[in-house]
Amino acid sequence: MRSTGAGGSVVLLSGGMDSATVLALASRGRAPVHALTIQYGQRHVREVRAARALGRHFAVESHVVVRLPIGALVPSALTDRRRRVPATTRARRTTEVPATYVPARNTIFLSLALGYAEARGLRRIWIGANAIDYSGYPDCRPEFLRAFERLSRLATAAGVEQGARFRIEAPLLRLSKGEIVALGERLGVPWALTWSCYRGGRRPCGRCDSCAWRAKGFREAGVVDPTAPPARPRRLRRR
Amino acid sequence: MRSTGAGGSVVLLSGGMDSATVLALASRGRAPVHALTIQYGQRHVREVRAARALGRHFAVESHVVVRLPIGALVPSALTDRRRRVPATTRARRTTEVPATYVPARNTIFLSLALGYAEARGLRRIWIGANAIDYSGYPDCRPEFLRAFERLSRLATAAGVEQGARFRIEAPLLRLSKGEIVALGERLGVPWALTWSCYRGGRRPCGRCDSCAWRAKGFREAGVVDPTAPPARPRRLRRR
Repeated sequence: MRSTGAGGSVVLLSGGMDSATVLALASRGRAPVHALTIQYGQRHVREVRAARALGRHFAVESHVVVRLPIGALVPSALTDRRRRVPATTRARRTTEVPATYVPARNTIFLSLALGYAEARGLRRIWIGANAIDYSGYPDCRPEFLRAFERLSRLATAAGVEQGARFRIEAPLLRLSKGEIVALGERLGVPWALTWSCYRGGRRPCGRCDSCAWRAKGFREAGVVDPTAPPARPRRLRRR
Repeated sequence: MRSTGAGGSVVLLSGGMDSATVLALASRGRAPVHALTIQYGQRHVREVRAARALGRHFAVESHVVVRLPIGALVPSALTDRRRRVPATTRARRTTEVPATYVPARNTIFLSLALGYAEARGLRRIWIGANAIDYSGYPDCRPEFLRAFERLSRLATAAGVEQGARFRIEAPLLRLSKGEIVALGERLGVPWALTWSCYRGGRRPCGRCDSCAWRAKGFREAGVVDPTAPPARPRRLRRR
C-alpha cells in the first residue's frame, strides 16, 4: 500500500464496495483527492447517491457526476437487459467474458478520468479494477492498465509538453472479494453507504450477480454487511 | 487513399468540414459505415444538425449522437468561454497548445468509438485529426493515434479473445486545410450541410477561430464555400 504522494488523485467512484475501498486508500495521504462518478446506462440513481455519500464521508476536494448514456452506444447485458451480448464479445477460448462486459468500458472511464486529472493538475487515477474474481474482463488486466498509462503520456499536453507521468492505481487488481472487504474493513469503509445491487430498490435485491459477489466477499472476510437483508428476524417470525 | 475493406467502420462525425471529408472517404468502400457524434460542452445543437444531415447524405448504417457534458469534467476555452485554460495545459516549450485544447478529448472520443465499434463488430475507427494546421494538439499526432491502436487490442474482448485488430484511420493527419477542402471537393462533400462556426446562429459568424480556419481552407483550395456570408451583394448595395 502506498501513500498518495504529491500531485493529487482522482478516484473513479461508482458507489460500490470496490471503489469505496479504493477511495479510502487514496484518502490516506495528504494530497488532494477528487472523485469522478460516471452514471451510465441503466445503473440506478441509487448508486449515484451512494457515490455522493461516500464522497462526502471522505471529504473529497471535488466530485463530478457525469451522465453518459452509454447504453445506446455500447449495448450490453449490464446497460440493457433486453439485448443479448453481441457475438464479438463472446469468449471463443478458455477464459469466459461475462455477459455483463461493456465494450471498452474501462478505456472510456479512464479517458474521462484522464481529462479530469489533466484539467486539474492531478497525476494519479485510481480505479477499482479487479483481475481475480472478474478475470474475464479484458480491461481489468494489468497489461491493459499499463498500456493506458503509457498512452496517457502521449495523449495529454501535460505529458507531451511537461513530461508529466500519469499513474493508474489499481490496488484491488489481485485481491479476492473477501480480501477487498477485509482491506476496506481495516480502512474503516462505511459499508452502509455503499451500494452494489444492479437493481435500484430501497434495499439490495440479494439475488443479482452483484449482490452475490458482495455477499461472497463479506462471507469470506467474516464481516457483517450492514446493507444485507435481515435474514434471521424473518426466520424467527416463521416459527 | 484506401477503400474501407471488410469489417465495417465507425466515423467520428462532428458535422464540420474535416469529419465530413473523412465520412466521404470512409463511404467509398462497400463495407458498412456507421457514424458517432459526441455532443459536448457548449458545442451548439446546430453542429449536431449538420452531423445528422451528413449522416443521411452518406446513408450511414446507423448514427448515434451521445450527449457528453464534458464541460463540467474538463474545463477548456472550447467548452466554457468564461474559464481560462488551466496552467497545466499551457505550453512551456516551442510548440504552443491552443486555448481550445480540451484535455484528453481525442482519447475520450476514440474510447467511445472503440466501444461502439466493438459492440457492432466494426474494426475501423475514422477520425478527422489533423497535425498540420493544429499541430499544437498532442492528441492529433501520429504517435498518439498508433498508441491508441495498440491499446485497443488489450482493451477489448474482441482484441484479447479473437486477436481482432482495430485500426485508427486519420486520413487528414498530414493535410493542410486547403488540401482537405480540395480532397472533399473531389469526393463531392456537400459543404452546404457542414457547420464549422463555434457559435450557433443561423449563419456562421465569420469571425471565430473555426470560421477563420474554414475560410483559409476554401481560399487555399480556390473553392467557393456555400455557407460563407454573401460578401459581394452587400458591397454592391453600398454603391
